[in-house]
Amino acid sequence: MKAIFLENGTVSVRDMPMPERPPHHALLRMRLAGICDTDLQLQRGYYGFEGVPGHEFVAEVVEAPDEALIGARVVGEINLGCGACDWCRRGMQRHCPNRTVLGIVNHPGAHAEYLTLPVENLHRVPDSMPDDVAVFTEPVAAACEILEQVHVAPTWNIAIVGDGKLGLLIAQVLRLTGANVHLLGHHAHKLALLEGTGVQTHLVHEGEDLPLPRHWADMVVEVTGNPSGFATARALVRPRGVFVLKSTFKERLDLWLADIVVDEITIVGSRCGPFDTALRLLGEGLVNVRPLIEATYPLDAGVRAYEHAATRGARKILLRPSG
Amino acid sequence: MKAIFLENGTVSVRDMPMPERPPHHALLRMRLAGICDTDLQLQRGYYGFEGVPGHEFVAEVVEAPDEALIGARVVGEINLGCGACDWCRRGMQRHCPNRTVLGIVNHPGAHAEYLTLPVENLHRVPDSMPDDVAVFTEPVAAACEILEQVHVAPTWNIAIVGDGKLGLLIAQVLRLTGANVHLLGHHAHKLALLEGTGVQTHLVHEGEDLPLPRHWADMVVEVTGNPSGFATARALVRPRGVFVLKSTFKERLDLWLADIVVDEITIVGSRCGPFDTALRLLGEGLVNVRPLIEATYPLDAGVRAYEHAATRGARKILLRPSG
Ligand SMILES: [Zn+2]
Ligand SMILES: [Zn+2]
Repeated sequence: MKAIFLENGTVSVRDMPMPERPPHHALLRMRLAGICDTDLQLQRGYYGFEGVPGHEFVAEVVEAPDEALIGARVVGEINLGCGACDWCRRGMQRHCPNRTVLGIVNHPGAHAEYLTLPVENLHRVPDSMPDDVAVFTEPVAAACEILEQVHVAPTWNIAIVGDGKLGLLIAQVLRLTGANVHLLGHHAHKLALLEGTGVQTHLVHEGEDLPLPRHWADMVVEVTGNPSGFATARALVRPRGVFVLKSTFKERLDLWLADIVVDEITIVGSRCGPFDTALRLLGEGLVNVRPLIEATYPLDAGVRAYEHAATRGARKILLRPSG
Repeated sequence: MKAIFLENGTVSVRDMPMPERPPHHALLRMRLAGICDTDLQLQRGYYGFEGVPGHEFVAEVVEAPDEALIGARVVGEINLGCGACDWCRRGMQRHCPNRTVLGIVNHPGAHAEYLTLPVENLHRVPDSMPDDVAVFTEPVAAACEILEQVHVAPTWNIAIVGDGKLGLLIAQVLRLTGANVHLLGHHAHKLALLEGTGVQTHLVHEGEDLPLPRHWADMVVEVTGNPSGFATARALVRPRGVFVLKSTFKERLDLWLADIVVDEITIVGSRCGPFDTALRLLGEGLVNVRPLIEATYPLDAGVRAYEHAATRGARKILLRPSG
């Protein structure tokens, strides 16, 4: 089969053997997959990754222990728990210390013609939902995770710092609470994608004054992936406010924690979220994802697709099987 | 009047003019005051402090706008809000951006024969409560603040890292929830003070293995004031757990925030707390403070008192007026 392979910071398209299907796993034929900022970070050496990347996908079940699944169109949760530890027994596979992660940690990813996942990781996609909507399930779930972790009141001022794909999805999901949601970003064409959603946007440039008062926000969400975004978010959050960290910085960050104590800030690390809720929000049209698509490439053109995705200001790049 | 004065890392006892009483303030005669780790940090240059330190005290009202207060025995909240800003109007004087802080920021402290505070900062001490119990109101309130910020379940495992005075108080306050509370410290004689409270203690030494399994704790409280304590607490807290920061590190801390995101840790900065609740807990005997007292010095002997307080492993040092 064809697959994208990352190695020493290089992307290539290879002919690879079909993945073997372990017990309780389904074999999936990829229909559409997304390139995410995490994939680009993996390419740059985050986690020392080498292999097939990709964790945003829609696929068709080709083989499964349960025949009723065959032919189903599915999306899949990306964390594969060991099934035996305390975390897995409590339904927290996402935090299993022995977990592998699709396309990220020791499990070949979705930027390939075929992939495997445990049956319990799969969620059926409603027939009425097109592939190019369902492929956003994973990042929409990551946005929903914030509302699983923090009780957001409609009285709140919320500042999202960063206009990447995930930032734009988080803005729409947090707006569902009725809170006063503002997003700060560097790219006018991305901010324009939020028109009509009720999210207020601010075009900001490095070194300029903040467009909102210092300590304006009851909650900030840092989703830029760079330390200057962290500083902006820190300036905006009020004492006793909530600081949601969505960025996985490659860099270490030099922090004066006394400041966090004095202002009694709550910092919430936030990662993967609930797929069923994300599918429902997408199905009900509560999150608008199609304007986020920049281009779709065949797997064969994976090298160009990765280059395009790494372009400053690019929206979502999708991959489909070749031919 | 006699007062302790900190300047360039030096403690001295001076004759100083009586403090002037601003409008809406009471003039207080100090009865008993505590030396806290923050005072020792101020001495070392934290906040660039110069002046009269001290924010733990019991005092008698000498002058007040309301005559009914005169003669009352009181403790006092240490943050003095401006009274005019949004924070003050919402009753959050503790976070007023223009605040001064008794003995810490631009308001002379309680390590003196006389001090002033706004009348609304004062809380009457019940007649039945001795001075050497009431003087712990401020640190007990700081311990209670954790329960104001975090919903602690009795099913939780809690690890408190640090056996300083505040750590010992936090252990007792958190134990009120019925949670499984363990405290880690370097000093056997301090751990012994928790006997009979239901708090489990562990004597630990630098470089040894942890006495509890990695990721054992649903919540950790970091109260050592040094970066190695931070690392211990980080190792103990489980994914999705709560990390309460009580230490105001003088040092900046080099953090890999990606780690906080992947494990979805919630970090809660925590500072000053509710005095009325602390007084009630002390009155009901739910927190046992007297064994924490190491020695009481007259103000005249303030230099020796500060030296004693800075001794490794010292418990609470109190100051009383001379003569
Ligand atoms: Zn597991
Ligand atoms: Zn104020």
